[in-house]
Amino acid sequence: MKAVQVVGYGKNLEMAEVPAPEVTGPYDVIVRIGGAGVCRTDLHILEGQWAEKSGVELPYTIGHENAGWVHAVGSAVTNVSEGDKVIVHPLITCGLCRACRAGDDVHCENNRFPGIDTAGGYAEYLKTSARSVVRLDDSLEPADVAALADAGLTAYHAAAKAARRLRPGDRCVVIGAGGLGHIGIQVLGALTAAEIVVVDRNPDAVDLAVSVGADHGVLADGGHVDRVRELTGGHGAEAVIDFVGEGGSTGDGIGMLRRAGDYHVVGYGENIDVPTIDVISAEINFIGNLVGSYNDLCELMVLAARGRVRLHTAKYSLDRFQDALDDLDGGRIRGRAILVP
Amino acid sequence: MKAVQVVGYGKNLEMAEVPAPEVTGPYDVIVRIGGAGVCRTDLHILEGQWAEKSGVELPYTIGHENAGWVHAVGSAVTNVSEGDKVIVHPLITCGLCRACRAGDDVHCENNRFPGIDTAGGYAEYLKTSARSVVRLDDSLEPADVAALADAGLTAYHAAAKAARRLRPGDRCVVIGAGGLGHIGIQVLGALTAAEIVVVDRNPDAVDLAVSVGADHGVLADGGHVDRVRELTGGHGAEAVIDFVGEGGSTGDGIGMLRRAGDYHVVGYGENIDVPTIDVISAEINFIGNLVGSYNDLCELMVLAARGRVRLHTAKYSLDRFQDALDDLDGGRIRGRAILVP
Amino acid sequence: MKAVQVVGYGKNLEMAEVPAPEVTGPYDVIVRIGGAGVCRTDLHILEGQWAEKSGVELPYTIGHENAGWVHAVGSAVTNVSEGDKVIVHPLITCGLCRACRAGDDVHCENNRFPGIDTAGGYAEYLKTSARSVVRLDDSLEPADVAALADAGLTAYHAAAKAARRLRPGDRCVVIGAGGLGHIGIQVLGALTAAEIVVVDRNPDAVDLAVSVGADHGVLADGGHVDRVRELTGGHGAEAVIDFVGEGGSTGDGIGMLRRAGDYHVVGYGENIDVPTIDVISAEINFIGNLVGSYNDLCELMVLAARGRVRLHTAKYSLDRFQDALDDLDGGRIRGRAILVP
Amino acid sequence: MKAVQVVGYGKNLEMAEVPAPEVTGPYDVIVRIGGAGVCRTDLHILEGQWAEKSGVELPYTIGHENAGWVHAVGSAVTNVSEGDKVIVHPLITCGLCRACRAGDDVHCENNRFPGIDTAGGYAEYLKTSARSVVRLDDSLEPADVAALADAGLTAYHAAAKAARRLRPGDRCVVIGAGGLGHIGIQVLGALTAAEIVVVDRNPDAVDLAVSVGADHGVLADGGHVDRVRELTGGHGAEAVIDFVGEGGSTGDGIGMLRRAGDYHVVGYGENIDVPTIDVISAEINFIGNLVGSYNDLCELMVLAARGRVRLHTAKYSLDRFQDALDDLDGGRIRGRAILVP
Repeated sequence: MKAVQVVGYGKNLEMAEVPAPEVTGPYDVIVRIGGAGVCRTDLHILEGQWAEKSGVELPYTIGHENAGWVHAVGSAVTNVSEGDKVIVHPLITCGLCRACRAGDDVHCENNRFPGIDTAGGYAEYLKTSARSVVRLDDSLEPADVAALADAGLTAYHAAAKAARRLRPGDRCVVIGAGGLGHIGIQVLGALTAAEIVVVDRNPDAVDLAVSVGADHGVLADGGHVDRVRELTGGHGAEAVIDFVGEGGSTGDGIGMLRRAGDYHVVGYGENIDVPTIDVISAEINFIGNLVGSYNDLCELMVLAARGRVRLHTAKYSLDRFQDALDDLDGGRIRGRAILVP
Repeated sequence: MKAVQVVGYGKNLEMAEVPAPEVTGPYDVIVRIGGAGVCRTDLHILEGQWAEKSGVELPYTIGHENAGWVHAVGSAVTNVSEGDKVIVHPLITCGLCRACRAGDDVHCENNRFPGIDTAGGYAEYLKTSARSVVRLDDSLEPADVAALADAGLTAYHAAAKAARRLRPGDRCVVIGAGGLGHIGIQVLGALTAAEIVVVDRNPDAVDLAVSVGADHGVLADGGHVDRVRELTGGHGAEAVIDFVGEGGSTGDGIGMLRRAGDYHVVGYGENIDVPTIDVISAEINFIGNLVGSYNDLCELMVLAARGRVRLHTAKYSLDRFQDALDDLDGGRIRGRAILVP
Repeated sequence: MKAVQVVGYGKNLEMAEVPAPEVTGPYDVIVRIGGAGVCRTDLHILEGQWAEKSGVELPYTIGHENAGWVHAVGSAVTNVSEGDKVIVHPLITCGLCRACRAGDDVHCENNRFPGIDTAGGYAEYLKTSARSVVRLDDSLEPADVAALADAGLTAYHAAAKAARRLRPGDRCVVIGAGGLGHIGIQVLGALTAAEIVVVDRNPDAVDLAVSVGADHGVLADGGHVDRVRELTGGHGAEAVIDFVGEGGSTGDGIGMLRRAGDYHVVGYGENIDVPTIDVISAEINFIGNLVGSYNDLCELMVLAARGRVRLHTAKYSLDRFQDALDDLDGGRIRGRAILVP
Repeated sequence: MKAVQVVGYGKNLEMAEVPAPEVTGPYDVIVRIGGAGVCRTDLHILEGQWAEKSGVELPYTIGHENAGWVHAVGSAVTNVSEGDKVIVHPLITCGLCRACRAGDDVHCENNRFPGIDTAGGYAEYLKTSARSVVRLDDSLEPADVAALADAGLTAYHAAAKAARRLRPGDRCVVIGAGGLGHIGIQVLGALTAAEIVVVDRNPDAVDLAVSVGADHGVLADGGHVDRVRELTGGHGAEAVIDFVGEGGSTGDGIGMLRRAGDYHVVGYGENIDVPTIDVISAEINFIGNLVGSYNDLCELMVLAARGRVRLHTAKYSLDRFQDALDDLDGGRIRGRAILVP
């Protein structure tokens, strides 16, 4: 089959002809790819940022946001059948460790991550596990939802966690209305009646935020911390979800947080650097957010099927993988680029 | 009445004769002091560290860990009567703001703090509010429990919050087995079956920790992070409660924390300085902890009455206030110094 | 002032001239009534159903769903001022008992209930407490929201409690789309993305339910239990909120509940009569719901101000109290009757 | 191998020679039995009470409380190895349905129940799944803990659930201090500082309760409801755990419950029959409790290994199965009878 591979760090990806994956274990599922999201992490992989962490051997096929149709299943698979339309959770998890048994499968002690440490979805077929496939509603198409598998799932996870503590009258600040942020805003709108204040440096992103449900859009022009405090009665917001995590966003964001508030860390890059006396005297919390669980992905697919979460996509045939990466790198993608084999 | 007052920053406290407080508002309660805890914060006040924050006018009476007997009550007070033995919650709260109405009175928008920003308990009488007094069990004496009013309450609050997520098989690391820490250990022992690992630089404190219920005592001698990881199966602990917050404790403590774990910040001094990528990739949380609520204090008094929490005290007559402060400053107090009028 | 009073059980209410209430305690608030909801409980009071429970002495003024303007305040009141537009929480609570201190003021050990056991709001003025008044947004008028003070608050409390456990993909059955039910549906729509299935015997109520946000309306015509099971994939719903509680609704409702589901009891009349083996083998829960807390009322007012909860009202001048009661008794009110002095 | 089988309802069990189970699926685990608990449910099975529900074909091997050593494992099993000492969770679950994925595997949509609907553990070997085996601490022996697999696990599940809401100062009533109850008391003692009040008809059971940690033992002699109300300040307890569920226990228990309290249903037999007006006016909850999850069993094994939960057992060789059943039926077992092959 055709597969797009990393052949060296600092080099371009290359299309190769490789053997299609086959069922070898009882819980294996082979998915015929319908769409594979192109993610900024893919650029980072090519730069070599993940080389040591993943320990993956080159060449290998990348792509960790995948959806498609079930092509073949192992002997013990009961939850999907050949032909089923599915989205693929980014992790393959063991189902036996304590985290998996608690529903917190993201912290599986024995996980693998196709596209990062094993063959991914920039290809015609992908090998994953019965524990990683979520059947799609008839109304959804793989290429339209593929990017929800990782970027959208992370946004859902953080927004849903924040929503559990937000009550009517509370405010939630969303920092960053890009790929993750604009999904997060829609999730907050679906799960809570809190007032949503969005902060972004890009006026278009601010407009997009308001169009998908933010109550207030604030341009990050230097006066934004004051503006948010003004919008929150001088107290700051009960929750901040930071989808940026760099360029000073954490310092700004802490300045927008109310006493006893929750600061959700999603984006990354800089350090959180905060005096412990401020943490205790305002009794604030910093909450880490990784990608969502399998059940989170099921819930997000329900929101998508009900039209509560929509994602803008730009589709490219698999052969045009280089154009997609170039467009992403050049800031020419609105929403998310998707490779379609 | 006699009262010990701050007369200037950088100066010694002085004993003065001042008018005894009187009931002027409907919810006022006058407490005849039975014991007032001597706290490190009192030393900080004298150094002027709180001068700007509190805005208090000098001279004023300090002392924020108080217990005694109800001497007089305002017209609307129904929960205590003259003669009742009480411990005094350190804050006077309004009962009307949203935080108070939610049971989270520590975040009262209109609070006062006797001993910090208004007259405190190094005196014969203290003025507080009906909302701040907790009746004591017959078995408890004011001078024995006074120090639980603030130091103990803070430890209770953090340990009880941590306990809500700890299950049998989980581990909780306690950093610092001093005044707060050794209360925290007892609270954890009462509220959870988690394994308790205590880390301290002082061998005596480590011994004390084990004697009050820690499962493992670890001397902070440079190898302590490794030792804790070893004790936690190489994974780190599900919770860390940091009663120190300075001298590198946060860096060490983060190294002892498991994926998806909670880092409880109680002690303060240094900054938390952690890469956002570590926060999200391990999905860890930092939880601020201030003093406990009124109901927290009620619960702590139940533990005290049942003998589940004990505090070692060294009593001084009120006249000997300078000795008590000197002994505290000189590290000569085991447990807590208490002034008894 | 004018006041409508109970003069005897089994007799009609009578208009009387009585002294206007005055401030006597520090937390007293006198409200000039802008609207008083007419509730089925008022009919039950006249029938004598509450005579023994309330122990109220006749004659007395009824009316427990009140809103208006602050007319006078006691010396210690800081949260409202003369002229403020307010809705009145139905209970006067002490603020000092353990339940009040935990934010659970509905279980106040020392509460009073104007309109039930002391003078209520079918009058020109009402005496209540600073702890019972919630300021209204500029966009809301007392006569429009008065009925949210009790009926709406109860519906909010139950729906918000259910929402805390409902995730996308879950289903919530609402039994009864009358006064409380149609508020409950709107609250569920605001706080959760769960699918809402409404069951009612009245086709108009089913239509109303769908128009305010229900995903499915089911006519209770004998086949409704089967129909709901069909709509829930044969498993039943994760939550049932029963606003009826009589005429067989509990038996039907249990039949609509999924394993591990929550049955919220709000309406009352009949017994819950269920084999313990069914409770344990399906591991279902029955959750009692009384009126909401003060903070619940604040939250409901936020939803009202944001247009997320709307209530249809029919207004009557205070003099026409008998017409309002007759229309309620005769089933001629759509939404809620409101007396306007 | 030898196995004790049901050969007909209303007949005695019979020892048979049957083929030992073998690994056929990738997640199969064969356990060499070290101990099998003899449960009252086994008597009910013989009476035919479960015949229709289970649909099991006769003859079959009973026994659903099992522990032993791993004898063989399927190709995909990674969590245990041959020779490991294990206790066996009573259910075989799929790991793929929504409940399993949420950690709530007891509600698995595709479960099997060895000893009830397929071959159980009154035998030399048992076939179960990798998802059902919990490794034992070195200090624990299979025959000593086998009865914790079902009876103990149910008690743990209910007590741990209750403990999550109990705070110091709260009271928890335990109805029934028999097999489950005396485990529940120990679990409450390990997980909470609430005051424990135990009610039983049998003076010996009351004594046992106090010896394993109950604060108060109350003989159910007719005055017990009043006695419990007295012990709870006239208000009733914040939680009641009813391990009996028949003979009037639910009516009594509701009379011991405080406003806003939780009634945990564990034992079964009679109906809960309670007016909805009582449910809503006191805002009480009825909480169903089935057996615990896999992670619950892990936690219970931690308590056992730490000596916090102990179970008295009477051991019988497998050949003496009839004596064990007779002794159970005749009330001659203190603690739990265990068959040892």
